[in-house]
Amino acid sequence: MRWLDGIAVAGPLDRGLEFGDGLFETIALLDGRARLLERHLARLAAGARRLSITPPPASIVAAEVARAAATPGAGLVKLILTRGDGGLGYAPAAGEAHRHLLALPARPRPPAWGEEGVLARLCTTRLAEQPLLAGLKHLNRLEQVLARGEWTDPAIAEGLMLDVQGRLICGTMTNVFMVLGEELVTPALNRAGVRGVMRGALIEAFRAEGVRVTERDVDPAELALAREVFLTNALIGAWPVRALAALAWPAGPFARRAQAWVGAW
Amino acid sequence: MRWLDGIAVAGPLDRGLEFGDGLFETIALLDGRARLLERHLARLAAGARRLSITPPPASIVAAEVARAAATPGAGLVKLILTRGDGGLGYAPAAGEAHRHLLALPARPRPPAWGEEGVLARLCTTRLAEQPLLAGLKHLNRLEQVLARGEWTDPAIAEGLMLDVQGRLICGTMTNVFMVLGEELVTPALNRAGVRGVMRGALIEAFRAEGVRVTERDVDPAELALAREVFLTNALIGAWPVRALAALAWPAGPFARRAQAWVGAW
Repeated sequence: MRWLDGIAVAGPLDRGLEFGDGLFETIALLDGRARLLERHLARLAAGARRLSITPPPASIVAAEVARAAATPGAGLVKLILTRGDGGLGYAPAAGEAHRHLLALPARPRPPAWGEEGVLARLCTTRLAEQPLLAGLKHLNRLEQVLARGEWTDPAIAEGLMLDVQGRLICGTMTNVFMVLGEELVTPALNRAGVRGVMRGALIEAFRAEGVRVTERDVDPAELALAREVFLTNALIGAWPVRALAALAWPAGPFARRAQAWVGAW
Repeated sequence: MRWLDGIAVAGPLDRGLEFGDGLFETIALLDGRARLLERHLARLAAGARRLSITPPPASIVAAEVARAAATPGAGLVKLILTRGDGGLGYAPAAGEAHRHLLALPARPRPPAWGEEGVLARLCTTRLAEQPLLAGLKHLNRLEQVLARGEWTDPAIAEGLMLDVQGRLICGTMTNVFMVLGEELVTPALNRAGVRGVMRGALIEAFRAEGVRVTERDVDPAELALAREVFLTNALIGAWPVRALAALAWPAGPFARRAQAWVGAW
């Protein structure tokens, strides 16, 4: 027997709900087309391999995403892949994986955030170091929920997060890039953080243009030395950061190049 | 619009599924009565405070658990409390919390596991250190899923887990006690692990009998010095550990006292 808020409901529990035992993708729609879909599906498949979840065939997922993308008014598709039904402990001996798909309107963002840049803050919630899960877009996101709960001021677009050792890792929902000299630097994500689809696409695009892009441990004190800082994810593309506490940066040429590519994709 | 495995379904996503944004309790039933119910409800309320989730009144939850406990054949009730509906990012500005309740048959366990003790193993999956979430029975359980996925031998009852620093913390689904001299020692859970309801009840019961119980950092090498080791959770009560790798222990008087209390509760 099962109940939701006191009402009897049918069906077993999903291990995604029970344990966060799964992965997700948040895919931007442009004119009914899913942007960077191949990258999303590749990351999902790689995450499923890491978690030993047998994913449905990519062709089925792609077809379902395409159908969801045709929903009138939809601006994004959220895809959740879970290990399947649960109810009997942690052992991952469940049956077939489940895919949850949701077509949602895009969240309105001030155009100035892309044009002039955003205000960011530094979160006090630290990210734990877990190499086994680092990089994955898995469903265990309480750290991000706690960090995003630290502020309600709608003028602040994003909060940057450090790991428990004090390294700069990411924003609550974005990856971070900084320009140091002529080099583009972005935090290594082998202990914490999510390897964003947009982050990967932009790293490749910059490298293809001959820009040196380095993924490494980043001390947040390096932000003070950066010529520009920008944030990326699959939905927003790239936002320049114009201020974080006492630090301020211009919306510089690297962020503009990133935005131009995103516009073309 | 929303789909599950390609079929259109109604309703928004639960943040419990989206982000593991919630808590759970697994409550043993004995003759239709929920064991240690007040402790489960107290832990749930404390966890909700830590996560800033507004829980439903305890009286409503208690009444619903009592109703679920009356399900014929049920041996346990699983209660999941989530922050509510989601769909729009990590910000915890959702509406009302949801409670999922499931009445399930008890999992059959070999009687010998309680009588003679269990075989345990040491997991290679390490627990991350996250003081903000340590102790809570929250829904972010991928570490436990990975650890429990390390073995399939049904003769092994449990896997013990270390944190990333190498401290002994817990089993995948149990807390750990060891007897050192006349002292009962159990790992401190301020950086990782779940503060089990049975653990808390037994610590109080031992202390009320004058036994010295210490919660502290534990080096797994101390297991070799222990006179007995036992595992606890709300469903199993207490299992002596009879062997872990090359180590072996008798089912000793501390585990027997714990089992006697559990039998009386």
